[in-house]
Amino acid sequence: MMYVKRLPEVRYEEGEISSYFWNPEAELMSPEETLALQEKKLRMQLQYLFDKSELYQEKFKRAGFSPADFGNLPDLDLLPFTTKQELRKSQEESLPFGRHLAAPLDKVIRVTTTAGTTGRPVVQAYTRNDVIRRNESLSRVLWNFGVRPGDKVFNGFALSMFNAGIPFCTAVENLGAIDVPVGAERRADGFLRLARDIGIDVLIATPSFVRYLGEKCHEVLGFPATDLNVRVICGGGEPGFDLPGVREEIMATWGTEHVYDLASMSDAHPNSFANCRFRGGKHQVTPDLVLVQLVDPQTGRQIEVRDGVVGEYIFTHLDREACPLLRYRTGDIVRINAKPCECGRPTPRFDIIGRTDDMLIVRGMNVFPSAIQTVVGEFAPKVSGALQIVLDKPGPSVEPPLNLKVEAAKDFPASQEEQLKNEMESAIHKKLNVRSSIQIVSYGSLQRTEKKSKLIVIKGEEA
Amino acid sequence: MMYVKRLPEVRYEEGEISSYFWNPEAELMSPEETLALQEKKLRMQLQYLFDKSELYQEKFKRAGFSPADFGNLPDLDLLPFTTKQELRKSQEESLPFGRHLAAPLDKVIRVTTTAGTTGRPVVQAYTRNDVIRRNESLSRVLWNFGVRPGDKVFNGFALSMFNAGIPFCTAVENLGAIDVPVGAERRADGFLRLARDIGIDVLIATPSFVRYLGEKCHEVLGFPATDLNVRVICGGGEPGFDLPGVREEIMATWGTEHVYDLASMSDAHPNSFANCRFRGGKHQVTPDLVLVQLVDPQTGRQIEVRDGVVGEYIFTHLDREACPLLRYRTGDIVRINAKPCECGRPTPRFDIIGRTDDMLIVRGMNVFPSAIQTVVGEFAPKVSGALQIVLDKPGPSVEPPLNLKVEAAKDFPASQEEQLKNEMESAIHKKLNVRSSIQIVSYGSLQRTEKKSKLIVIKGEEA
Repeated sequence: MMYVKRLPEVRYEEGEISSYFWNPEAELMSPEETLALQEKKLRMQLQYLFDKSELYQEKFKRAGFSPADFGNLPDLDLLPFTTKQELRKSQEESLPFGRHLAAPLDKVIRVTTTAGTTGRPVVQAYTRNDVIRRNESLSRVLWNFGVRPGDKVFNGFALSMFNAGIPFCTAVENLGAIDVPVGAERRADGFLRLARDIGIDVLIATPSFVRYLGEKCHEVLGFPATDLNVRVICGGGEPGFDLPGVREEIMATWGTEHVYDLASMSDAHPNSFANCRFRGGKHQVTPDLVLVQLVDPQTGRQIEVRDGVVGEYIFTHLDREACPLLRYRTGDIVRINAKPCECGRPTPRFDIIGRTDDMLIVRGMNVFPSAIQTVVGEFAPKVSGALQIVLDKPGPSVEPPLNLKVEAAKDFPASQEEQLKNEMESAIHKKLNVRSSIQIVSYGSLQRTEKKSKLIVIKGEEA
Repeated sequence: MMYVKRLPEVRYEEGEISSYFWNPEAELMSPEETLALQEKKLRMQLQYLFDKSELYQEKFKRAGFSPADFGNLPDLDLLPFTTKQELRKSQEESLPFGRHLAAPLDKVIRVTTTAGTTGRPVVQAYTRNDVIRRNESLSRVLWNFGVRPGDKVFNGFALSMFNAGIPFCTAVENLGAIDVPVGAERRADGFLRLARDIGIDVLIATPSFVRYLGEKCHEVLGFPATDLNVRVICGGGEPGFDLPGVREEIMATWGTEHVYDLASMSDAHPNSFANCRFRGGKHQVTPDLVLVQLVDPQTGRQIEVRDGVVGEYIFTHLDREACPLLRYRTGDIVRINAKPCECGRPTPRFDIIGRTDDMLIVRGMNVFPSAIQTVVGEFAPKVSGALQIVLDKPGPSVEPPLNLKVEAAKDFPASQEEQLKNEMESAIHKKLNVRSSIQIVSYGSLQRTEKKSKLIVIKGEEA
């Protein structure tokens, strides 16, 4: 079977400026159309993997699976998962792109790496078709955030090697907006001066950098960030834009209501989860390019994607050429919101609520520290947002109640602590179905570190 | 007249891997074909400037010139020059892209800036067609340096906002080679580790950064730079790759003979001057996209481009959309090498030998400090390369002989100084037709600064 090199459903042109969608044909497909397209593409992709990738050929053979065996979507369960550890091993065995590489080297045109704070970075390769799909994915995301031709789009992510560097810049060019490739490397002072000198309509960065720029603006430019007249703020890389407290603070600092969250991971492109203008979760914007499924994180058994379910999402590239992934276990736990969305997209929304590696099991219930954080965060401004989950012994199994230390806001009256405690315990029970025991602690008493704060501690190790 | 949006002569596909040329049809045009194409395009471009750009419309009107007046190339002389000062003023009057902007903002997709060490940076805008032409220009250059699909091309220029950042990265992708966007921002340690981990075939950077990486390699990686097996080293941004001493040092440090120079300037793209594999000057690789002419730097009168002549080069974009330049005075003085080149290109070669703003006039002869530097540099390893031109009073007029201080190499025997002095004076006279008086000074006695060393000093101010 010939692998079709340039699939006609990927567009190369600018969207209709009045449309809410960059690519309405693809973004508004019905579930039935999507399924039919996914199955058709999977048939080609499985054959491609078998023909071109050493790693997948071995995996298929070990599983006794031939690409010809694939009839429809449920058959995909006959194939093994792919894990992060496998990718690392595959890369170590065949530098730099790994044994899963499925395109010849002379078709690769782009490289990105994960941060690689310890040891060798994980490398992703892209062919020209992969780049077209990556551009398509981000064009859909940014267009849906309201970015349009004529907008000056400042990229505040790190440029060097990073997936949100060159790939983001070329996607902005693909969209037809004005790419201003400042990068996090220039730091806040240089960034703000360029924003003043060139003019800035859209700011893309991590929530931390957005907040930092907002704080520094007056000091560097002599006026508040609202005067820069940024219209759209978006990005990701860490939680923030989807946390109500953080988002509202950013909205106030910058004077715009258009603050949107975007989630992806380096290996997953062109998969992207992104807010629409109605928020309430993140849509998967490329169901024609990536198949996303849910599994139970403990058993690996498939979970039907319907409203309210929680599971680990796994994904399968439908036509990635260089570093395709098949049933890849992300370790990210999502909750599905399948209620009809005002934006008109038929795709359900996915909210990342935790990671499998920090999951707790409270009397059979899966509980994610980040989910607790979200519920507690909703009590702002009464709480500071700092929180600790205190376990008797290392997880994942925990005997209820779940012991929590929650930091009160500055100047929160002690007289109201009892009431706050009761309200929060009740909210956690209602939303997460877990019994908790909360101790309110005074502002500043929980340890803060430079990076992520430690959410889970063992008794006797609390700070 | 309709402005043709996508001109068919610009290619979008990868070159034939066995060909020495990326785009042989364009790169091997005869002088007659080139002239015919340039005149045809100029007719369209002048109308476009008149219709779309406020600045040029005014300039045309002031000159009493209507685009319909343009018949053939000599008519271009009826139009005024454009200068750097005009661009700065144009930009100040209409932020951020200037009154010369000829495309609507919603057609702009890319921004670059000059370094802007003092004050507001100068901003360049690009439409999608401008980006295609920029990619085309750099693809021709890199392909002609021997870069091919499958090669891992490390970009060691600064990425943030810089013309050799995103534009270079997308050009590498356009060529079909593997873009590795490391950037100067990651500094030597990070750069070298990535080169080791990912593998590096082509290194693009300034000569200084290439030399610095070569020096640091053993310290960072524990082995010499030759072990990295880089095949092609190229770049520019400062003199170096075309200076015999520097090039040979780089060739030895990195163990490759493929060291090539490339020259352009931020406002000039897609104009590029680049070595071919036979070196001996730099070809203008895009005569179909940019018209390059020579003028006498003092009178502004046109000089015919033929072998051996020296003049300031001016250029005119033939189809740039966003920031087109018309008869732009670069201030760069070039010497023409129009001898047939073994590579087969019919275009003459241009060597930048100086800047109009540091030109000296010695009894009617134009003398460029950098030209003297080149002649002196050829005496390495007898000289250190450091040099000062000592004037009685500020230039440009100088009474012969030209007084020079030339630093001897470390351990150069004093007994041979007289002979060296005579040889150099004679070489300068032979090559530049200028009488000089040289004083040999001992190694280390001429001042060195962090940046460029001061080539011209006034008597009493020497160090």
